[in-house]
Formats: sequence, C-alpha cells, structure tokens
Amino acid sequence: MSGWKDNVRVVEAYVPGDQPDYPDMVKINTNENPYPPSPKVMEAVKNIQDSKIKLYPNFNAQVLVSALSKYHHIDEDKIFVGVGSDDVLAMAFLTFFNSKKPVLFPNITYSFYKVWAGLYQIPYETPLLDENFRIKKEDYYKENGGVVIANPNAPTGICEGLDFIEDILQHNRDVVVIVDEAYVDFGGTSAKELIDKYDNLLVVQTFSKSRAMAGVRIGYCMGNKELIKAINTVKHSYNSYTMNYYSIVAGVASLSDKEYFDEKIKMVINTRERVKKELEELGFICTDSKTNFLFAKHKSVPAKEIFESLRSNGIFVRYFNQPIIDNYLRISIGTDEEMDRFLDFLRKYFK
Amino acid sequence: MSGWKDNVRVVEAYVPGDQPDYPDMVKINTNENPYPPSPKVMEAVKNIQDSKIKLYPNFNAQVLVSALSKYHHIDEDKIFVGVGSDDVLAMAFLTFFNSKKPVLFPNITYSFYKVWAGLYQIPYETPLLDENFRIKKEDYYKENGGVVIANPNAPTGICEGLDFIEDILQHNRDVVVIVDEAYVDFGGTSAKELIDKYDNLLVVQTFSKSRAMAGVRIGYCMGNKELIKAINTVKHSYNSYTMNYYSIVAGVASLSDKEYFDEKIKMVINTRERVKKELEELGFICTDSKTNFLFAKHKSVPAKEIFESLRSNGIFVRYFNQPIIDNYLRISIGTDEEMDRFLDFLRKYFK
Repeated sequence: MSGWKDNVRVVEAYVPGDQPDYPDMVKINTNENPYPPSPKVMEAVKNIQDSKIKLYPNFNAQVLVSALSKYHHIDEDKIFVGVGSDDVLAMAFLTFFNSKKPVLFPNITYSFYKVWAGLYQIPYETPLLDENFRIKKEDYYKENGGVVIANPNAPTGICEGLDFIEDILQHNRDVVVIVDEAYVDFGGTSAKELIDKYDNLLVVQTFSKSRAMAGVRIGYCMGNKELIKAINTVKHSYNSYTMNYYSIVAGVASLSDKEYFDEKIKMVINTRERVKKELEELGFICTDSKTNFLFAKHKSVPAKEIFESLRSNGIFVRYFNQPIIDNYLRISIGTDEEMDRFLDFLRKYFK
Repeated sequence: MSGWKDNVRVVEAYVPGDQPDYPDMVKINTNENPYPPSPKVMEAVKNIQDSKIKLYPNFNAQVLVSALSKYHHIDEDKIFVGVGSDDVLAMAFLTFFNSKKPVLFPNITYSFYKVWAGLYQIPYETPLLDENFRIKKEDYYKENGGVVIANPNAPTGICEGLDFIEDILQHNRDVVVIVDEAYVDFGGTSAKELIDKYDNLLVVQTFSKSRAMAGVRIGYCMGNKELIKAINTVKHSYNSYTMNYYSIVAGVASLSDKEYFDEKIKMVINTRERVKKELEELGFICTDSKTNFLFAKHKSVPAKEIFESLRSNGIFVRYFNQPIIDNYLRISIGTDEEMDRFLDFLRKYFK
C-alpha cells in the first residue's frame, strides 16, 4: 500500500525560528525590519489594475530587473530575481554545484547552506571559524566544488573587507564563488563591484531585511552574464513564472524611494550602536556587527538562561542550541522603544 | 578562467509561449481567463497593512490552506500550497520520483513534465495517445516510478472520467500518481474525492485559470496527509517562505466569492461551446474540450497557415510545431467580443 514511500527524497527537515504572535510582545528574533516599507510600496500596490492580475507576469520579472539595473548601475543581463534570496541561493546551488568535489562554507554560517546541499546531494565541507568567529581564508584555497561566504556572516554579524573576498576569488577561479549579502546594507561592503573582474562571482542580496519586505519575497543576484544566463536556464526549467505581479510592482516602488531607505537604514544602525554600548555596560561581549542584529554573550550568565527569562517576559530573541555558539544570543534590532523594553528588562535582571 | 562551466547543470531550456503586447490585439494564446478576478481580491489587497509586509509570512501559508480546506471540505493537513501549480508539480517530482524506474506520462501532454524530469534526472517514458488523443490506460499498468496524468489533458482538452483515474490507481498502488487538474473547473471531473481511498494520489489544481489569477501565482495539491507531509518537508528544505503575503490574502479573498467564480466559469463555458459550433461550421474539427481552450484542426487548410494569418492580423493563438499535433491550433477562450473578432477574421479567411 505505501510502497511510494521508498521513492521519497530523504531530506533533513529545516525548522524555521519561532514565530510567536502575542499582543504586546517584543519580537526581535527573526531579523525583520522594525519599520514598514516605503509608503510608495503601499501606494503602488493599491493602484494595480485587475486586468494585470489575470495575466501571467513577465517571466523574467523584467521591470524589476530593469529597476535593479538602474539602482546598482549594473547591466540587466547581469541580474537574476527570485522568490527571496533563499530561492536565488537554492537555484544557484542546483545550477552551479554539480561537481564531485566538496562545496566549502564556514561551520558557523547561514544554516540553509547545509540543507540545500543535502536536498541536492551536493558534497560539502565546513571549515571552522577562528576563535574570534573570523573566516580563515586559507581554508578556502584547497580544491573544491564551489565556495559560499555570507558577508556579513550570520549569526556572527562580522563583515570581511573586499580584499578578503578578492583573495578568495583569486584562489578559486574555476568554481563559482557565492557571496551572500543578505545584511550588507546595514554597514557592510558589497562585492558587487567585482563582478566584471571575476566571471565566477555571484553576489546575492534581498529585499527582506533592509527594505522591510520579508512578506513580499524578493531576492536577487548579480554576476557576469554567462552566470546569470545559466541560472535563468535552470530556473525556467523549474518554473517560468515564480514572481507574482504584486511583488514585482512592490519591488520597483521600493527602489524608487532611496531617501526613505537611507533614512531607515540609518535609524537601525544608530539603534544598533546604542544598544551595543548599553549591552556592554551590562556585561555583554558583542561582535562588531554590520547587520540589523547583535550577536552577544554575557561574561557570567549563560545565554540560555537569559533567553528563557526574556521569553517568559514576552521578549523573543534567537538562541542557537548548538556547539560553539550556544552561549550567544542573536538580538534583532527593533524600534528604539522595543529595544528600551529589552534593555529595561536586562537592567533589572542583572541588578 | 571559466572552469566553473564544467559544473553547471545541463538542462533543456524551456521556451515559454509568445507574450505579445500590442494595443488592440486579441491574445488568446496562453489560456488566461478573459475576466478579471473577483472584486473582493482587489479590495482585500488594497486593505493590507504595511505592518504585515515587513514580516515573514507564515511558512505554510496557513490561512490560505485553511480557506482551501473549507472550500473543498478536505482537512488542512491534506493540502499543500505553492507558487503556481508549476511549483507544486516540480516539488512533487523532486519529492516522489526518486526511483530508477521510469515515470510515465503521455507523449502529448503538458510540456513541463519532461522538463522537470530532465532537471532532476528522473527517467521517464511517454506512452502514445491513441488516434483520437485518448490516453490508453493499459500503457500505465507496467512497472514504473510514478504516473502523471493531466486531466483534462493539455493541449487536447479531453477529460477522462473518475473510473478511468481509479483504474490507473488500482494498477499503481506503490508509486505516486499525480493528477494535474489545472483546467478541471471548466467542466471536468476532479479526482479529489479519491484521496482518502488511495494514499498515493496527489491532485493538483491552480488559481491561474479558473480564478483569473495567473499573475498571483498560486497552485496547490491535495492528497493523504503523509504525502502532504513529505512534500512539505522537501519544500521546507528548499525555501520556507515561498508564498508572499499579497498572494495569500488575494487567494483567500478569491475563495470567499463563489458566486462570482461560478458566474464567470459559466460565461467561459458558454462562449467555448458557441465558438466550437461556429468553428465546426467553418470546417474545423474540435476535440470535446472541458477546459478554457479549444483544440482544433481545419479539414483542408494547414494549421500553420491559419496561425500565421491570424498573427499578422493581431490575433494570437497557440501553434505547436511538433509531430502529431502540428496541424492543430489551441485557441484560448476570450471574451465574446474577442472571440467574435477571431471568428469574423476566419469567416473572411475561408470565404
């Protein structure tokens, strides 16, 4: 009766973070932006005509590609758009990582890289970060089937410079090097300016964090046109129409409002630096985050205890119950008011 | 320099149909609905709050699953939602077709089945339809790695009955049988009532055609809860957040307006039957379509000539330049006005 089960693909189930939904909670556990998207996004979606909804959208999300092209000053044929950066990254794994040699990414990094490797049966190795959570570039000089670097890295928040990325590229000319820049807008340095110099570099970005559009599902990558052509070909043999019309319109509108974007980014960075200072005064040690979260441990109290006390008081941060980082908390940057409630609680907790 | 190309996945590029965009054209080539979606869809999207857009959507699109559950009277844990039925079908291929035995689907059917098999390196065989474009059920009795039946079939438009589907299920108890019902709402019979009887049956439907929401990208499947759990597990190891908030809200709103849905379906069916009769009077032979398109050949003039004459007059139908069906046209059902322009042209053409 259930012989079909023998043919089911075996994968490790990914467990998404908690998505609590209580009134009056402080939810700083999933790196969402505390501010809404640009009012231009809401306006543009309100004005969509019903005659557009019944039609298939353009299969390359061309108007969004075109808007990104103008925004980044990068040719349209060097940009690929997908359903969040997870879609773009998964497509890139499927497209580019078909070697028998292992793909390399750090042991502490975005947890989905392992999941995609498992899904597509791609061999991989995970070189260790050093004791300060820095990537050791020499570990990426060995023969491999591809390299994936999150920069800034997650959940450490640490950003390496362009010289570091370029060193890895120079040691890896014959495999695709993916630089995942989900958090780059919060003070990191993008490798996008290297795509014309290295034909094997794919730079991935997202609208979910800095553009406050996690609900809209837009990610994209930039690379030389042959890389983009290859990923488009695989994408079209999966699903030609992945981008819905609402998201395309919302994405274009967001890119048109640079002033709003810059202002909100500045607010998040200012809040981050203030909270970091106050956490340090409370005995926390924080990494030098260039993201919209802080990665912090306390000098004497275990992270798990702090996490649980926060949670039972309606304040949700992220705790990773895994080796090496199990004494750290990842704290997304919320509004100043939310962060004050978080800090007020900790001040009492440590008194 | 370009050694990375050695590791690129080799796939056959899918070429989507023409998407012409001229003023005053008659576009009846991609099976879109000629009527807009329910006004409730537009209203619901207009009322979305910006505070929702900045957050990740629920990772199972739970409110949409719940609305589908109520609509179909099927438990929530027997429903999976994806980015159009292409996403659902591709996930199903990846999840369920991991046998070394060939998956079976007809030689004339939805062209993407071959493309997904290629993408995921799944062996397949394509039994021939009979001379009347009917599926020969005995061809699906042999050992196989899975079965895919589009019902109604595309581009023939022909719908087999429930007894036919059940016969195939009875001969295939140990592999997953997918019934792709993209067009079922236009007069076909759904196999959804069989999902409790056959634990290996997956029934796939879409919002793109009958709900006039091709631009929103919603597809879904129904099956026993272990099938749905398996596809969810693979989906979550690909991308946990595929459904954007706009599409979820739009989908729920569409399901809430059954009166509008029924009325528009009836209009499309009435137009189809009228156009079919008029085509027959002009010397066409049409299949018995239960979809929103007609599949027709002319008794004396080659399809390609008619196709090209229509096109040069701003009327776009679908022509398949491939063996067996290269003398047929697929004509999507537009508004009565659009179909009258199409028929008027043909009346002059054949005079």
